[in-house]
Amino acid sequence: MLTTLPFSFYYGGSDANAIFYSALITGIVGGSLWFIQRHYNEKDIGRREGYVIVFFTWVIMSFFGALPYYISGAIPSFTDAYFETMSGFSTTGASILRDVEIVPKGLLFWRAMTHWIGGMGIIVLSVAILPFLGFGGMSLFFAEVPGVEKEKLSPRIANTARSLWGIYIGLTFAMVLMLMLGGMNFYESICHAFAALATGGFSPKNTSLAGYSPYIQYVATFFMFLAGTNFALHYMVLKGKFRKAISGVEYRTYLMVLLIPAIIISIALVTQRGYGVEHAWRAAIFNVVSIISCTGFANEDFMLWPVFTWFILFLLMFVGGMAGSTSGSMKVIRWVVLFKNLKVSLNHLVHPTGMFRVRVDGNPLNPLNVHNVFAMFVLYLMTFAVGSLLLTVTGLDVTSSMGSVATCMAGIGPGLNTTGPVANFAHLHDFAKWVLSFLMLMGRLELFSVMIVFSSAFWKK
Amino acid sequence: MLTTLPFSFYYGGSDANAIFYSALITGIVGGSLWFIQRHYNEKDIGRREGYVIVFFTWVIMSFFGALPYYISGAIPSFTDAYFETMSGFSTTGASILRDVEIVPKGLLFWRAMTHWIGGMGIIVLSVAILPFLGFGGMSLFFAEVPGVEKEKLSPRIANTARSLWGIYIGLTFAMVLMLMLGGMNFYESICHAFAALATGGFSPKNTSLAGYSPYIQYVATFFMFLAGTNFALHYMVLKGKFRKAISGVEYRTYLMVLLIPAIIISIALVTQRGYGVEHAWRAAIFNVVSIISCTGFANEDFMLWPVFTWFILFLLMFVGGMAGSTSGSMKVIRWVVLFKNLKVSLNHLVHPTGMFRVRVDGNPLNPLNVHNVFAMFVLYLMTFAVGSLLLTVTGLDVTSSMGSVATCMAGIGPGLNTTGPVANFAHLHDFAKWVLSFLMLMGRLELFSVMIVFSSAFWKK
Repeated sequence: MLTTLPFSFYYGGSDANAIFYSALITGIVGGSLWFIQRHYNEKDIGRREGYVIVFFTWVIMSFFGALPYYISGAIPSFTDAYFETMSGFSTTGASILRDVEIVPKGLLFWRAMTHWIGGMGIIVLSVAILPFLGFGGMSLFFAEVPGVEKEKLSPRIANTARSLWGIYIGLTFAMVLMLMLGGMNFYESICHAFAALATGGFSPKNTSLAGYSPYIQYVATFFMFLAGTNFALHYMVLKGKFRKAISGVEYRTYLMVLLIPAIIISIALVTQRGYGVEHAWRAAIFNVVSIISCTGFANEDFMLWPVFTWFILFLLMFVGGMAGSTSGSMKVIRWVVLFKNLKVSLNHLVHPTGMFRVRVDGNPLNPLNVHNVFAMFVLYLMTFAVGSLLLTVTGLDVTSSMGSVATCMAGIGPGLNTTGPVANFAHLHDFAKWVLSFLMLMGRLELFSVMIVFSSAFWKK
Repeated sequence: MLTTLPFSFYYGGSDANAIFYSALITGIVGGSLWFIQRHYNEKDIGRREGYVIVFFTWVIMSFFGALPYYISGAIPSFTDAYFETMSGFSTTGASILRDVEIVPKGLLFWRAMTHWIGGMGIIVLSVAILPFLGFGGMSLFFAEVPGVEKEKLSPRIANTARSLWGIYIGLTFAMVLMLMLGGMNFYESICHAFAALATGGFSPKNTSLAGYSPYIQYVATFFMFLAGTNFALHYMVLKGKFRKAISGVEYRTYLMVLLIPAIIISIALVTQRGYGVEHAWRAAIFNVVSIISCTGFANEDFMLWPVFTWFILFLLMFVGGMAGSTSGSMKVIRWVVLFKNLKVSLNHLVHPTGMFRVRVDGNPLNPLNVHNVFAMFVLYLMTFAVGSLLLTVTGLDVTSSMGSVATCMAGIGPGLNTTGPVANFAHLHDFAKWVLSFLMLMGRLELFSVMIVFSSAFWKK
């Protein structure tokens, strides 16, 4: 929090007091908690404690992270401030701010920073911790990442996380540089780079990236694409294993689910809306990458496009980027497994006595992993249905409700209709905002780690 | 077809010629086919041939079934006539007729009859044939039904089908009687009974059941409920095993998914729309039973209700009635398996070394069956998503598109918005009508038996 003070002072310092007091409160509470727990041994932390820690870390960080907005009065409602902070830490990017540009610059920098911190958390969580716990069939896809094996949390995992953090920081710097080369100022470049690498999506501008040059929009597209890629692949490329990095089925599928919809949408924009070819391609690829990487930057109001094009974007909200990236949603690899499994099921019906296994990159998958992918899919869609229903109870229309839930669960940002890319979440009922805050967290933690804390089996001895 | 002639003549006979010529064409083509194949041995019909026969039976029957509408000129577009017939044989009940009551009575009787014939086909298909082929994990749930065992299609299965047909015919007579006791005339009683027992939903009236007395609406609700119940349970009740029939988990869940939404919706209608209690309850239970049993009769325009109440109805379109009934959609038992499995997955995360199995009524399920249920769920929702997308391509709004696809796949009838309970499917683009016709068939045949005919593995030696 205190690192935002330089920006606060540079831009007038109207928010400096609020930031300082928030940091003080957070410091005192955090310090006290550290003082209480410092004699506990790390070895007492088992599997169950792990789940509780992961869940409450996000809940409590969002509480303290909301203080600067609330104390400064920039966001007068605590519900709104909490929503905005959870949206930040979960790298969603859904906002309740009607006018971003009147918010003091120190607070806006804090807003971008919640994304970046959230992104770091996700790297350690999704690359190092969740696969180890066997979540949603992910454990098998990380055999390539050094340190992630079926053993107890070890120093090697900490090393892995550090290497990946290095890549994350390096890419952030690179993006800042490339944005500044396009004429964006230092402050806005950092804010956008934080938002892009974390696949968050908060922008310090009301119109997100719509007001910037095509060059800036292509740069943003490129870094959103990188942020949605498995960070282990970046690591491989750094180690010179370029060919190996791009040969996996998940990476190739990731490219396909980006390019095919972008081509279809740009054809529709040219033929049905009279866009020029470059404009149509930029609008299409920017928005497809923004949705699939779960960033949520906007450069156009896609609600004005032909219905089926934004319905494609809505469906893509359920895809997500690669496993091991900072993106959210279901992840490409799970879809690969689902499709391969459907093929196996059909083969099985034709040849009941045949032996068929789902293979990813030549390796047969453990049936338990396939089963976990299925369970994740079912839980994801059930949560989506229940969440949408809860939003319609507040009187919100069906398209806005489904769009809001899909975008928040996947950690994207813009929804549909009244929560679309040029709208925001301010007008929603407080109840809807708490539901969405909870869904952002559930989606971010891959559902099961939240569900488990609420299950009866968890609390039984 | 010829059995509709008495009704045609009684009501003026303007459609008698068209019906007669249609029957003649059908008879000549059918007779020729029989003549060609009569020397083939039934033992040559294996698994593959079974799939092809099931698929093409529905496709070709709908072609010939459309002739009376088309030849008479009552439905001038062949696309529309085919849609209406597929909607009949698949017991969906979605209609392209803007004004049902101007259609000659012989044709309307044929329309009701397509439902009833379709219902008979489904009984033999879903009770006797599909479980034997191991579809979507259903084989295990029919251990109770005499004749359905892991053996070759045998005379015992034919006997089972005959017993269940007896129940089907008996219930149809009972409903006709009870409707006539409520003052409905003989012709309309038969049409409604045919539509209800097959869970079809075509009515010879423009306003479906809205114009009839509360008594009639309750009778319809009761028989829709029975038609959505596993016919094997009716068989058990006839054999005096009443207690056993109502003790299974699927039956109890079926009751819950009917009663809980109906109670919630009736409370909303009383508090938010000022309905009287009896009116609210009747509206709620009628529509919930109509959707869950996949019948699709209407007594009100639920699109005028609070948004969340018809969103509940939309979600219920994915539930369906019990396995072994004439209803469509996913079926209650599959949801039971999915929920039980989620619990098992959570237990597994808490106790990684524990052994957990999904049990239905005390019997542990074969993991392959659980897997098949999952595969069905995934395929169902993917088909729903692709189908909805294809409809939005024609320019239809998202809510109407999703409603139309959900209702046609599940074999219900009314969709949402422009295809809602007081609307019809006439205004859709021809392309959308063919897509929906195909989806009615896919949903009816439990997806896999259609998918398999289009898979490459199927055609390889």
